[in-house]
Amino acid sequence: MHAQPRPAPDPGLLARAARIRLACFDVDGTLTDGRLYIGADGSESKAFHVHDGLGISLLRRAGVQVAFITARTSPAAEIRARDLGVEAHTGVKDKRAFVETLRERLGLEAAEVAFMGDDLTDLAVMAAAGLSAAPADAQPAILEQAHWRASRRGGAGAAREFCDLLLAARGAMSSDAGEARQ
Amino acid sequence: MHAQPRPAPDPGLLARAARIRLACFDVDGTLTDGRLYIGADGSESKAFHVHDGLGISLLRRAGVQVAFITARTSPAAEIRARDLGVEAHTGVKDKRAFVETLRERLGLEAAEVAFMGDDLTDLAVMAAAGLSAAPADAQPAILEQAHWRASRRGGAGAAREFCDLLLAARGAMSSDAGEARQ
Amino acid sequence: MHAQPRPAPDPGLLARAARIRLACFDVDGTLTDGRLYIGADGSESKAFHVHDGLGISLLRRAGVQVAFITARTSPAAEIRARDLGVEAHTGVKDKRAFVETLRERLGLEAAEVAFMGDDLTDLAVMAAAGLSAAPADAQPAILEQAHWRASRRGGAGAAREFCDLLLAARGAMSSDAGEARQ
Amino acid sequence: MHAQPRPAPDPGLLARAARIRLACFDVDGTLTDGRLYIGADGSESKAFHVHDGLGISLLRRAGVQVAFITARTSPAAEIRARDLGVEAHTGVKDKRAFVETLRERLGLEAAEVAFMGDDLTDLAVMAAAGLSAAPADAQPAILEQAHWRASRRGGAGAAREFCDLLLAARGAMSSDAGEARQ
Repeated sequence: MHAQPRPAPDPGLLARAARIRLACFDVDGTLTDGRLYIGADGSESKAFHVHDGLGISLLRRAGVQVAFITARTSPAAEIRARDLGVEAHTGVKDKRAFVETLRERLGLEAAEVAFMGDDLTDLAVMAAAGLSAAPADAQPAILEQAHWRASRRGGAGAAREFCDLLLAARGAMSSDAGEARQ
Repeated sequence: MHAQPRPAPDPGLLARAARIRLACFDVDGTLTDGRLYIGADGSESKAFHVHDGLGISLLRRAGVQVAFITARTSPAAEIRARDLGVEAHTGVKDKRAFVETLRERLGLEAAEVAFMGDDLTDLAVMAAAGLSAAPADAQPAILEQAHWRASRRGGAGAAREFCDLLLAARGAMSSDAGEARQ
Repeated sequence: MHAQPRPAPDPGLLARAARIRLACFDVDGTLTDGRLYIGADGSESKAFHVHDGLGISLLRRAGVQVAFITARTSPAAEIRARDLGVEAHTGVKDKRAFVETLRERLGLEAAEVAFMGDDLTDLAVMAAAGLSAAPADAQPAILEQAHWRASRRGGAGAAREFCDLLLAARGAMSSDAGEARQ
Repeated sequence: MHAQPRPAPDPGLLARAARIRLACFDVDGTLTDGRLYIGADGSESKAFHVHDGLGISLLRRAGVQVAFITARTSPAAEIRARDLGVEAHTGVKDKRAFVETLRERLGLEAAEVAFMGDDLTDLAVMAAAGLSAAPADAQPAILEQAHWRASRRGGAGAAREFCDLLLAARGAMSSDAGEARQ
């Protein structure tokens, strides 16, 4: 039985991917399908995908740091990040400046930072990143600019594909998940 | 990498769009996918999309007023509208009369009002609007009548496409989102 | 702009549809997409669609009685039925016997009863109905047996299409929704 | 009217399926679409499908034992299992070892155990099972290894198709659902 086809990334892209030591993810539309479930009492929920979660866990295990970066105030994003053992930075108004500061704090070069995003508020930080990625259903301007585009949609495996690309570039085997969290 | 194709709007449509100063949106099926999530305790939730939210924010910044107009009593719609800094009018039984009153209060002509809707209860108000729009999965009678039809579905970017059309018609650049809310 | 194509029903089907005075709908998988959203506290939610709701309202207005019939105990189904002003019968173990009793109470013939369902527990009651209908994503055995099959999926407009068929067969115009509930 | 086509399983697969006496299902991504709905208060919901539920009920009635096996702590999975009258084992770190113990406790051979899963944490247990199955949207490595692949996605009927396969292999009729739970 055949797996779903995924295009082989080009060598230049793999070279970019092999350098990444910090992978940043926007939340709404990237780690979720963009939907905000709003209740009559003002409660807000959002849906994260277990495939993305496992990819992020494997990436961390392979030595890549992971951060969630969102402009929105989002307790759900903080809870999901804690669940996966990664950092969440919410309410970030200027993502580019924030990631720049984070990068310097970690002593990394721009080429060692990746950003996956889906909408205009991610454009500047993606332009400054060593590798930029977008879900299949990102806004057109993002799809045009991103170095790489997932075949799956936001919140439905797009982030997992990006994690797989980063792992493949590092030569890390992702077939042994062991007790990694989803 | 190529963006998803969006058909170029015809000149007559752009001329209509350039005049719009008030953009009204139905809620269920237009700003949501039409689903009412109902709990055992009678709680009702619905899902709004961040892509639509950013489009609405950019439209407001470009000087177009935005209003949510729904026949349904809907605290969630009010919460989402407040989140985006726009007006929500819920429990509106006669949308056409309501928008007529709103239009007169704002001193606008009919040609300056747009309405996006998805079902029969929107037909009359859409017929009276300067520009009418529908999500890809609107009911057939709405798709037949609307001046413009989105390629995306309700609650999944249809409203964002309409905002992009209005912004393009005004010559407003939407590539710089700055700190706009989603 | 063209509406989505819907195949014209054949004359025999329209004759069946014109006789219907009681339209019964299964709930999970027919009026919903079949998903049961279960919370950590045991709470259960399900999603109804506004397009279906408006169709049911128009059907009632045209003089057709509507009932929800489900084997599952379901407060959400009761709430949604109340919202639309129709009857909900939940926890029904034998749907065929139940509908038979309901039919007799209303003084109707079998040919005047329609049933829309999606899974094996609906087979017997559908076989006894004057007109049986199924969402596009019903189970194979249901699709084989049903007199009519919607082009939309359960919880995403399938019931609305069936209401439109019943209304068309009665010669009722459905383009004027007035203040009908969704 | 024609049912949706399902490919006829090959004889070798049916022989494997006919031996199964314990059917194990992963939860997230297999019995659900992989989405974790997270609220601002940390509450976590997930969506199970009634089609899968009815298949599991019919499988039990035909004498096949069913167990949910998940690495995640999941009250929702326990609630859904209780609803269907099957066992749920949550927080299972090593699925292969766990199923091995379960198999021995029940006095079964490896060839009598089936496992349906969707991601890398299911690979080892699937390799040890007499019959392994995957939803259509499982991760590529799983689709490559599984003996059988559903045409439907996780949480949207994939498990039901697998139940139907097991029932067909046993020569059990699934057209009479009687009062089976969904």
